[in-house]
Amino acid sequence: MKKIINNPGDVVPEMIDGLVRSYPQIVARIPETQAVMRSDKESMIGKVGIISGGGSGHEPSHPGFVGKGMLSAAVAGQVFTSPTPDQIYEAIKAVDAGKGVFLVIKNYSGDVMNFDMAKDMAELDDIRVKSIVVDDDIAVENSLYTQGKRGVAGTVLIHKLVGAAADQGASLDEIEQLAKEALPNISTIAVALSAATVPEVGKPGFELPDDEIEYGVGIHSEPGYRREKIKTSKELVKELLSKIDKKLKLDVTHKYAVLVNGMGATPLMEQYIFSHDLLNQLKVKDIEPKFMKVGNYMTSIDMAGISLTIFDLKKEKWLEYLNYPVETIAW
Amino acid sequence: MKKIINNPGDVVPEMIDGLVRSYPQIVARIPETQAVMRSDKESMIGKVGIISGGGSGHEPSHPGFVGKGMLSAAVAGQVFTSPTPDQIYEAIKAVDAGKGVFLVIKNYSGDVMNFDMAKDMAELDDIRVKSIVVDDDIAVENSLYTQGKRGVAGTVLIHKLVGAAADQGASLDEIEQLAKEALPNISTIAVALSAATVPEVGKPGFELPDDEIEYGVGIHSEPGYRREKIKTSKELVKELLSKIDKKLKLDVTHKYAVLVNGMGATPLMEQYIFSHDLLNQLKVKDIEPKFMKVGNYMTSIDMAGISLTIFDLKKEKWLEYLNYPVETIAW
Repeated sequence: MKKIINNPGDVVPEMIDGLVRSYPQIVARIPETQAVMRSDKESMIGKVGIISGGGSGHEPSHPGFVGKGMLSAAVAGQVFTSPTPDQIYEAIKAVDAGKGVFLVIKNYSGDVMNFDMAKDMAELDDIRVKSIVVDDDIAVENSLYTQGKRGVAGTVLIHKLVGAAADQGASLDEIEQLAKEALPNISTIAVALSAATVPEVGKPGFELPDDEIEYGVGIHSEPGYRREKIKTSKELVKELLSKIDKKLKLDVTHKYAVLVNGMGATPLMEQYIFSHDLLNQLKVKDIEPKFMKVGNYMTSIDMAGISLTIFDLKKEKWLEYLNYPVETIAW
Repeated sequence: MKKIINNPGDVVPEMIDGLVRSYPQIVARIPETQAVMRSDKESMIGKVGIISGGGSGHEPSHPGFVGKGMLSAAVAGQVFTSPTPDQIYEAIKAVDAGKGVFLVIKNYSGDVMNFDMAKDMAELDDIRVKSIVVDDDIAVENSLYTQGKRGVAGTVLIHKLVGAAADQGASLDEIEQLAKEALPNISTIAVALSAATVPEVGKPGFELPDDEIEYGVGIHSEPGYRREKIKTSKELVKELLSKIDKKLKLDVTHKYAVLVNGMGATPLMEQYIFSHDLLNQLKVKDIEPKFMKVGNYMTSIDMAGISLTIFDLKKEKWLEYLNYPVETIAW
């Protein structure tokens, strides 16, 4: 393992510290936690707080999306490990401005359990809390840490939607409804070229031969659905797009947003080539995305690989939310 | 070589195509070239055009910095190969709005020669062209492709400065003076954990044993100044910072901007840990940066490694330029 770290057990506190001290104008640490919140606390007054988080190792998710117009706070667990309920509870208390707090939870058993416990704790304090469990990964049903489908890069689109709505003054109930309505229209699927190495483990989460790829791998090295010899970008796009098409039934009369997401070690060069092939294959169906982002949004430490998220924009308002200006490190 | 590409000879046109089609609201291809320019051509009227570019493989440099407030155009050569003079010349003609064009050139012999030839061609058309050759890498004097010092991540800070000044209506002469004054105050130095693999070559540009690093490596795998066993982040920061301190003579009475730059395959986790150690070591000197960015700005394809750039903000105006809002893909 060759990494720019100190003690492998200290990566999370040091990383969070480096992040908040590099961008003090955007984020601040919530005292005595591994959670970060918006620095402009005063402009959150009268608005619903939005919190996400989970295990670390997915940077810029989630602290990079904290800021005006997006998340109010992000709670970071140890690498690939859910944050504890008390940390999430501290974050809820820190961002509550009287209008309630909405939690965006990725579908992993630990996260679901701990966020739920934090919610219960906050409700004892008379803070209204609602939540959504994001399960956008269509690769497999059930997985190492998940009942049902996993939550992956599509989570960032949910952050964007509910963050914009909250900033525009939507109520907690409206935000819950927005997230619930949007979620089934967001599908993600990934392909891995190599596995992530958790610093405290010191070796890759799985081994892939030098000439093989695996479709459908999760962001914690959960197994995917098929291994093959490495393919061209065109063929990778074809495989991933066909799975999403089967789920979303892509249709020229609909509008779509696209997120092409690097898994951590994949150069932008490859992400743009993949995007080129994606746009060509969508064009065959006469589809041209109305919104697109390409880059590292939901990573798996140093995994090489890419994920494709497509969002069927059934409501015009959703596109407006995606385009709504934010002040974050990483959107 | 495991990469998400099609034919290795097609990576640049496919990448540029993917980029402009993913972000049509920001960038557009200059017809029949591998150059991109701002989509909002009308808002460039009456302003000096700013062009940069060079070999591909450093994404998001340079096309990711094209947009209002930063570059007017970026010209992309083949991977690690200078763009040809005719491509640069086309970009100059495309962005000239009567006030002249300023070229930001990284110090590599091919780039310097080809940008100079393009400048001569444009001057025959009565377009005023000035330029700066950026040589911020303090690691070594002379190198594989360079007389003097190499141009690396500090180039992005020059883009930011001259882009902001141009957007505010500065003249070509004022922009040249700004760049010339700022440049000697910007120093960069890198450490590599692994080498980049050029797609058409198919193997890494150099070999580093599994437990070794190399200080001072260039962005085209040019040799650095020392190899050692892998060190902690703290020790890497100490080495790089001591070199920059020797050059810039860091002083508590000065203001500084910092750019911590990932080389392509280095996770943000490691970049933030490095930043944490950097800020601690600067604090020993009572220095707290006035401006900081952490992320992938000037990469070397899939190299693992990091570079540190420090900019001595001798003029208050330079900090204002760094903070000036832009509309780009990657700043």
